[in-house]
Parts: sequence; structure tokens; C-alpha cells
Amino acid sequence: MHKELLLDSHRRILPHIHRTPIFSSRLINKIVNADIVFKCENFQRGGSFKARGATNAILSLTEEQKSQGVVTHSSGNFAQALSLAAGRIGVKAYIVMPSTAPLVKKDAVLEYGGEIIECKPTLSARENEAHRIVEEKGATFIHPSNDMDVIIGQGTACLELLEEEPGLDYVVAPVGGGGLIGGTSLAAYYFGNGCKVVGGEPMEVDDAYRSLQSGYIESNETTDTIADGLKTQLGDKNFPIIQKYVERIVLVTEPQIIEAMHLVWERMKIVVEPSSAVALAAVLKDKPRFEKQKVGVVLSGGNVDFKAVGRFQ
Amino acid sequence: MHKELLLDSHRRILPHIHRTPIFSSRLINKIVNADIVFKCENFQRGGSFKARGATNAILSLTEEQKSQGVVTHSSGNFAQALSLAAGRIGVKAYIVMPSTAPLVKKDAVLEYGGEIIECKPTLSARENEAHRIVEEKGATFIHPSNDMDVIIGQGTACLELLEEEPGLDYVVAPVGGGGLIGGTSLAAYYFGNGCKVVGGEPMEVDDAYRSLQSGYIESNETTDTIADGLKTQLGDKNFPIIQKYVERIVLVTEPQIIEAMHLVWERMKIVVEPSSAVALAAVLKDKPRFEKQKVGVVLSGGNVDFKAVGRFQ
Repeated sequence: MHKELLLDSHRRILPHIHRTPIFSSRLINKIVNADIVFKCENFQRGGSFKARGATNAILSLTEEQKSQGVVTHSSGNFAQALSLAAGRIGVKAYIVMPSTAPLVKKDAVLEYGGEIIECKPTLSARENEAHRIVEEKGATFIHPSNDMDVIIGQGTACLELLEEEPGLDYVVAPVGGGGLIGGTSLAAYYFGNGCKVVGGEPMEVDDAYRSLQSGYIESNETTDTIADGLKTQLGDKNFPIIQKYVERIVLVTEPQIIEAMHLVWERMKIVVEPSSAVALAAVLKDKPRFEKQKVGVVLSGGNVDFKAVGRFQ
Repeated sequence: MHKELLLDSHRRILPHIHRTPIFSSRLINKIVNADIVFKCENFQRGGSFKARGATNAILSLTEEQKSQGVVTHSSGNFAQALSLAAGRIGVKAYIVMPSTAPLVKKDAVLEYGGEIIECKPTLSARENEAHRIVEEKGATFIHPSNDMDVIIGQGTACLELLEEEPGLDYVVAPVGGGGLIGGTSLAAYYFGNGCKVVGGEPMEVDDAYRSLQSGYIESNETTDTIADGLKTQLGDKNFPIIQKYVERIVLVTEPQIIEAMHLVWERMKIVVEPSSAVALAAVLKDKPRFEKQKVGVVLSGGNVDFKAVGRFQ
């Protein structure tokens, strides 16, 4: 069922998203002694893979649902992605954002035509505000990562990667809320020829790593990471998929994330955000595992605020 | 004659260089109200267009000359480019670098197989040292910008651009030592259909702008620019070409360069160095001229040391 869903969803979202290019770097291949290809979702519409899941979720609504709009709470890439997707499809998007969200993120949401509802910077305030909009406007709530249509949509990046590179031994993706790694692992299971999936996760937000060990969805005890897209925790929809299809999660430190990010910026000449670099950091850390293998790395996004980049050094 | 030289040189260097991609950005088109295509020489081998001229210059040597090696003095991209090109072709490269050159530049030269000769950080020390190597080793001196084979080689980037985008009204390139803008203007003259060439130059190193006004090769009075690739002055080989074929030079301020660079980094998700951003800065400054036109912008290189990026903010 997931196999057909992936193919159908991909066909459905293709007019609204970019089929992103695949890059490689001789130097990085030399460092790892492997054949690595990078799926460049930093070039995706809205600057991250999240346009895929958001578009797929909106396209799966009924016409009546579409007419009443969609709502989510996010201070990051999903806010932009849902505004963008909704705008393209002609659906109203309500985005609940904490008052502390960076101006650059708010501007991007507005630019794509989303309506921002500000709230206090706590999870409960965000949830309450989103709930109020569902009640008042009849809008459909779309979760950034714990929603099957979103998970399937995110998986289409790996589907495209495997169409072009069918011989991959591994696909490595960052682990945040579980949408990308969940969808990636489904795509690799159904369309990879024995392709294994490894997740990269910052040590500072190691909820997924611990969840796989304990068998329960664990919460983060710290969230002090530069990879701001990965601070969220897994959900009941994506956790069982991750348990079943992800081989392992590799934890990486903050200096390892920054080193990997600089390597991509300086050697590949492309801009990726810290969360993206976590997957390459995992490959660099676990080098012996990937030696002489054909490895796909999902570069999940490229939304960097360079005016604030001093903290990345 | 230049027409055939461009075509022959392009054919000759193609096995050794990348045919770089052409990117565009809807947002930047919207800002300028123009149709802009970017020739991405930041993805060129060695991280800048300079691999083209260096390769062409080496390939034009006799076998005897090749056997005795090549020498240049540079603390920037040409040092890397000549090492890279020489290494590929199997020729020894001696690179005279000031002792103050950044470690990252020296490492790149060594990585490509060049031999570094350190000297004091003055122009006369660099020239003397290069002269000594010509005398002692019989190596051929290759100037980074004031050499016809180098100029023609640099022009092949614009040649490729016009092959893919024959309808350009303008091509805009940064102006440093005059090699890129000289070659670009030749290619536009012979292969563009009335395509005009505009140079972008930092106000802090406005030697080319003043040279076009006075009719003589002027020196820089200040060199306090972030665009470190553009501090050199024109030479007797490229100046007459620039006088004849470049429509005008647009001067830009340091904040304009930084703004253009951030625009490319944040919106196009690619890394370009400050010197590259000068061409886009010129387009942004002179917007009315480019409105509703089809404009090619040469993104000349992407060698940024992100550990030192604080000064770009």
C-alpha cells in the first residue's frame, strides 16, 4: 500500500515541487573513501524538503476541506512550506508562530501568502491557538511530521534519488520530528535494492536514538543544538515506521555538525542549513561503515540566515 | 582571429574543465524586473573561472616549455587554478605566494600538486622571485590576467553562456585584473547577437573605471574591499580590449557587494565569493538599465573561507 502511495503522491506533487538535482564531491568521496551522492533538497521550493509533505497533505484533502483552509504551528521550514504549497494550490494557510520567531521566517511565510497568528513561545500556546483556528475557521490541522500524507510526501525525495541511483547501499538522512526519515525509510524499503537507511541525529536532541533503544517515544532532555530543524520529537505515526525500517541512528556532536556544514559550503559551493549537515556528519563519524559503499545523503534544506551566521563558527 | 581562438581554446580546454551550469532565481528576477541567468563558475574546477585561462595558457606551450614548468605569483584563485591545470596536464607549477597568504589558499595549492615559493608580501618581492624561477628553472611565467591565452580562456565561460542563451541583451562580469571582463567582452562581441557587456567594480578599487575615463591604465589608490579577487589593475593586453568592447563599468559600494552576496547565498542556496557578487551588485545598482532585459551574470567563483566569514556581515 505504501509503495503505491509513494508513487501516486509523487505523481501528484510533481507539478508543484522541484525535482532537485543530485551533486557529488570528489574531495568528500576521498575523505570517506566511498561513492557519495547528495540529494539537494536545499534547492527545493521554499528551501527544504518540507514542500513535498505539505503539498501532498493539502492535495489529499477534499474540496470542502480545501475551501476552509489549513493550519499548522511551526517556527521553521514547515511554516514556509505549508504557506507555499497552499498558495500554489489556492488554499488558505493559517500559520501559528511564536512571537519570538525570527523576522526572516515570518517574512517568508507572508511572502508566500500565509496568514500568521502570533502566540506565546510555548508548545501549549501554539497547540491551543492552532486548535482555536480549527474550531473557528473549520481549517484542517496538518502536523509537520506526524501525519501519513506528510511522511509519504517527504519520502518522495528518496524515491527520486533511487530512480536515478538504483544501486545505493545506504541512504542517510537527518532525524528531527521523524517525517523525513520515516518517508525515506519507506521509499528505500520499497524502491531500493536492499538499500539500508541510517539516520543522523544531534547528540543534544537524541530523542529518536533513545526511543529506538527503549521502544517508546522519548522526549528531549536538552535542545541546545545548532540544528534547529531537529529539535522536535517523534510521533505515533512515524515511530513504528522508523522502528521497522531504519537500520540505526548515529549521534553527532555540535562541532561535527559544523565541520560537515563547512565542508559542504566550502567544497560543494552550496548552502545547506545545519540540520542538513547532520546526515553528512553521521557519515563522517561512522566512516568505516560506509567505506567503499555507494551512499545517498539527503541534504534536507538550505535556509540559513547569514546575518546570524556568526554563531556557526 | 579572436573568434576562432575562442572556439579552438574552448574545444582544447573542455576535457580539463567543467562546463558549468546556469541557474536562475525567480525572486531576483522579481527584484530587478528582468530575466537573469547566472553562469555558475563557482562550480568550476578549483572553485573559479580561472581554471579556464590557466588551462588554456598551459596547453598553448610547446612540449619543451611544458617540460620546464610554469610559474606565477598569486595569493588567490589563480594560484589554485594554475596548480590544478598544471597537475592535470602533467606540468610542474611553481607558485610564488606572499608569506601572509591564508593557510587555506596554500593548502589548496599543495593539494593540487603545485610547489609554493614563499616571499615577502610586496609586489616587487613577488615579481623578483618569479623572475628568479624563470631564470633558474627555465619555467614559463604566466600572468593571471594580462596574457592573451589567459584572456581567451576566461572568455570561454561567456561563450558557453551564449551557446545556451543566445538571446542575451547584456552580460555582466566583475572587473579585477581585466582577464575575465576582457575575454567576456570578446566572446559577447563575436557570439552574442548585439549582446552588450557591463563590468561591475568595487568603488574601493576603481582603477578600471578611471582607466576607461582617462584612456590610460590607472592604479588603485585604495584597495580596502571585501572583494579580494579584484584588487589588481588592468594590463596592456586586456585594456585595449576592454576599451573597445565593454559598454561601461558600474561602481558598487561595500554594503552593496555584501547585500548581493547574501541574496545569492540565501535565495539561490549557492556559495559565491565577494568578488562574484560584484556583478549582481552592479545589476541591482543600475536596475533601470536592465529592466525587462535578458541578462547574463557571471558568478566568477566560490572560494570562501567560512572560518573568516565574520567580516562579511
